[in-house]
Amino acid sequence: MIAPSMATMLCVITTDAAVAPALFRWLLRGVAARTFNRISVDGDMSTNDTIVALASGASGAAVRPGTPSAKTFAVMLGVVAQRLATQIVRDGEGAAKLMDVEVIGARTDREAMAAARQIATSPLVKTMLAGSDPNVGRIAGAVGASPARFNPARLEIRLEGVRMVARGIALPVAPAVMRRLLRRPRVSVRVNLHAGSGCGQMLTCDLTEEYVRINAGYAT
Amino acid sequence: MIAPSMATMLCVITTDAAVAPALFRWLLRGVAARTFNRISVDGDMSTNDTIVALASGASGAAVRPGTPSAKTFAVMLGVVAQRLATQIVRDGEGAAKLMDVEVIGARTDREAMAAARQIATSPLVKTMLAGSDPNVGRIAGAVGASPARFNPARLEIRLEGVRMVARGIALPVAPAVMRRLLRRPRVSVRVNLHAGSGCGQMLTCDLTEEYVRINAGYAT
Repeated sequence: MIAPSMATMLCVITTDAAVAPALFRWLLRGVAARTFNRISVDGDMSTNDTIVALASGASGAAVRPGTPSAKTFAVMLGVVAQRLATQIVRDGEGAAKLMDVEVIGARTDREAMAAARQIATSPLVKTMLAGSDPNVGRIAGAVGASPARFNPARLEIRLEGVRMVARGIALPVAPAVMRRLLRRPRVSVRVNLHAGSGCGQMLTCDLTEEYVRINAGYAT
Repeated sequence: MIAPSMATMLCVITTDAAVAPALFRWLLRGVAARTFNRISVDGDMSTNDTIVALASGASGAAVRPGTPSAKTFAVMLGVVAQRLATQIVRDGEGAAKLMDVEVIGARTDREAMAAARQIATSPLVKTMLAGSDPNVGRIAGAVGASPARFNPARLEIRLEGVRMVARGIALPVAPAVMRRLLRRPRVSVRVNLHAGSGCGQMLTCDLTEEYVRINAGYAT
């Protein structure tokens, strides 16, 4: 049961920097939106997601708003959060592979996120990844089913950097080559809607028989 | 790849009644909304769902708006559509069981449908069904993740008619009894949000290892 907003997790981040609560809360909110709230294992939201950040100030290193130290601190906080979020997906029930989903060229960031989320939670896309099959039609189908508005005749899709769909048409790509690329432990999907400058990302994993075994098998 | 709105299907309904196109279209729209658009196998919408209705008029039996014949015709059309929609779910990839999801007591029908849809497309609920495990928390979690607004302290959930949650609290029900009930080929889930008079239904199936095998296994 892992999905935004946040996952089944009790996440505690600690630092010995001296960060004021208001600044720390603000930074954490932004970082969580870009990391923990952009992951999915099965699209099922959990009821007990919690992220707690504690600053002891023991090091005496002050982090103040608008200073370079705040910028450095924010970057480091982002790195830690992204690493933890990635570990959550990697640890998803039965997950064997990761998939980075990026949607660009949407009318708004919100529409890009909606499309990215639709791809990242599609059982057909996730089983396609499990089977290392370059069934790009499933990705196009998920994008089409999302609330994002775009002209299908301008759709572009790349799998592991290889352009498989351009101007809404599937390009002739050797399936054997794509299958080899999709066997990698982490695969990228990039969709360009060519409708604007909105973008959004999601990190997800494949849907395997092991996922079903684990979730159908345990008794309450 | 089966989900509302409509499924991967080319559905043709024929009749020898003499129904005017405008009336037939209107009846079909209402019937499709209550049947084909309330089913889900995996939540993935298809791009080629089509339902076509043809009336030859060969029988000479006229169906006119506002007459008893129109009412009878509408009922019969509904029965045919419901039967076809049920067959689609029963034929879902790897599906072994059906689940009727009903949400009542929502603030609006729209919110009830949203909650029913969230339950019917939840991988955790669907694997629970596959495993015949009465994990009612997964149903509560899906309802909570849906856009439906309600007071959790008033939530009521019934599985196969057995009240498992009342006033938001899980009741002591013998797991062995529930497991036996959940082994039935068609299982009912009824959620009462006690927040209004909106209601909605969905028909879905379980998520099995076979679903993953089929969808991960076929090469494009």
